Amino acid sequence: MKIIECVPNVSEGRRPEVVEALLGAVRSVSGARVLDASSDPAHNRSVFTMAGDAAPLKAAVLALVAAALEHIDLRTHTGEHPRLGAVDVVPFVPIDGVTMAECVALAEETGAEVATRFKIPVFLYEEAASSPARRNLEDIRRGEFEGLAAKLSSPGWAPDFGPSQPHPAAGAIVIGARMPLIAFNINLATDRLDVAKKIASAIRHSSGGFRFVKAMGIALDDRGIVQVSINLTNYEKTPMHRVFDAVHREAARYGVAVLESEIIGLTPQAALVSAAEHYLQLARFSGTQILENRLRNSS
Amino acid sequence: MKIIECVPNVSEGRRPEVVEALLGAVRSVSGARVLDASSDPAHNRSVFTMAGDAAPLKAAVLALVAAALEHIDLRTHTGEHPRLGAVDVVPFVPIDGVTMAECVALAEETGAEVATRFKIPVFLYEEAASSPARRNLEDIRRGEFEGLAAKLSSPGWAPDFGPSQPHPAAGAIVIGARMPLIAFNINLATDRLDVAKKIASAIRHSSGGFRFVKAMGIALDDRGIVQVSINLTNYEKTPMHRVFDAVHREAARYGVAVLESEIIGLTPQAALVSAAEHYLQLARFSGTQILENRLRNSS
Repeated sequence: MKIIECVPNVSEGRRPEVVEALLGAVRSVSGARVLDASSDPAHNRSVFTMAGDAAPLKAAVLALVAAALEHIDLRTHTGEHPRLGAVDVVPFVPIDGVTMAECVALAEETGAEVATRFKIPVFLYEEAASSPARRNLEDIRRGEFEGLAAKLSSPGWAPDFGPSQPHPAAGAIVIGARMPLIAFNINLATDRLDVAKKIASAIRHSSGGFRFVKAMGIALDDRGIVQVSINLTNYEKTPMHRVFDAVHREAARYGVAVLESEIIGLTPQAALVSAAEHYLQLARFSGTQILENRLRNSS
Repeated sequence: MKIIECVPNVSEGRRPEVVEALLGAVRSVSGARVLDASSDPAHNRSVFTMAGDAAPLKAAVLALVAAALEHIDLRTHTGEHPRLGAVDVVPFVPIDGVTMAECVALAEETGAEVATRFKIPVFLYEEAASSPARRNLEDIRRGEFEGLAAKLSSPGWAPDFGPSQPHPAAGAIVIGARMPLIAFNINLATDRLDVAKKIASAIRHSSGGFRFVKAMGIALDDRGIVQVSINLTNYEKTPMHRVFDAVHREAARYGVAVLESEIIGLTPQAALVSAAEHYLQLARFSGTQILENRLRNSS
């Protein structure tokens, strides 16, 4: 069985009845399971986590866009989070038994069909991007809904699919494929914020660290400790154990101990299994040796 | 969803058509998935690995016993492996979302129904044993099929369910509940068999080591190295990481490095996740944060 994760971000986080209607549209598709849904009123935005095989996920995204067109009008939408569309961003994420190439193909097919059926411009991003300038979501979304008409008619910003004018109420949609993101925090047994900041700086890509690490040092005032707060954007190429060991060594240099780590939200099983394989020096191990996986894949 | 593993051992490993008939009986039960089946002609014995919820597994065991009565007659059975019954041993093993107590109850219910329906004496063993003298399979099986009539009429050996005479063709059945067994081998970067044997002796329960470790040192002649071959009989109470680290330290004492480890066959996910939690110092982690688990338990 293939497992793909799909994490649509929609521009509605204040009206529970609308969020329910959007979720209902997704849940009506058999084979697309909703694993999580959270709304942020300040951002006026909701994030749904779904999983399933390619065909039902594509159908679920189409159902979600149809429902969003019915309930959301960006011309009257306000919120702290930048957004370009009623359904704003739709990443497909390979989890198990599926390649990144398959998720890219799914993003392209879904984008083409969304554009044709709903007359909404579609941009492809990250691994599905049609050019390096479109890899980063922030670059595509710059100017937001209010600047979208001007952006679409400027050089280099024709959409990948659909019309070169914004949908009046729904704007545009950014669809793509990316690796799962793991929110992995490491807490230090100290209240020295400077140490957390120095370690974050040492391990993050932007200042010379690991390619797939974003990190910052923050204080957990209520606990009197500090945290290296980490986003791992590709756990296969920059695995948790390598980041953990690096933080350990950097902290030791300041005479500071690692208190504990934590994973916020969901993680693919493979990220944890990979840590076990590393530390236990496991050779020739396959995920098919995990009883639960065997059960999932048996008929 | 509850996941229970059930690993029946049957006294037939030479006639493929009989093994197929037994497997067919098990597969006919919806909800009991067969994950693995292996036959040993020298032992004249087969081991099936099934998984599912309690009710289908109980039905599958009843179907298996019915099929075995049709095809196996222990009066003409020979093989290197000790055996008491046509269906010889049936352990129920808690894997996920289920307690040992539930597996013990399942063993008792299944044993009672097997005895009533087929007039076969049933012994309960390991966690389901009715007395300490019946915990160990070896003690129950001592005397084998050929000595069963005498054993059943001797003091202290009345069966837990069923008649006090052997079933003429099918003998008796040993049913119980136990923790999953993990076959975990650690290979050393040396050809010194004495080192592997000393380490095995240091870590195994019988000579003063960990409570749930069986171990021996063996030579892997084709690779020119030695192995500490380990059976972990309770990975929750004696976790893989503790055994691995102990082997590491013992080996260092002889100037020997750990080359690699390997898991033979299946392991529960939790054994690997527990190693990742330990080495990454993960706090407040729950299996529900694993995306695949969330998917399995969502509707």
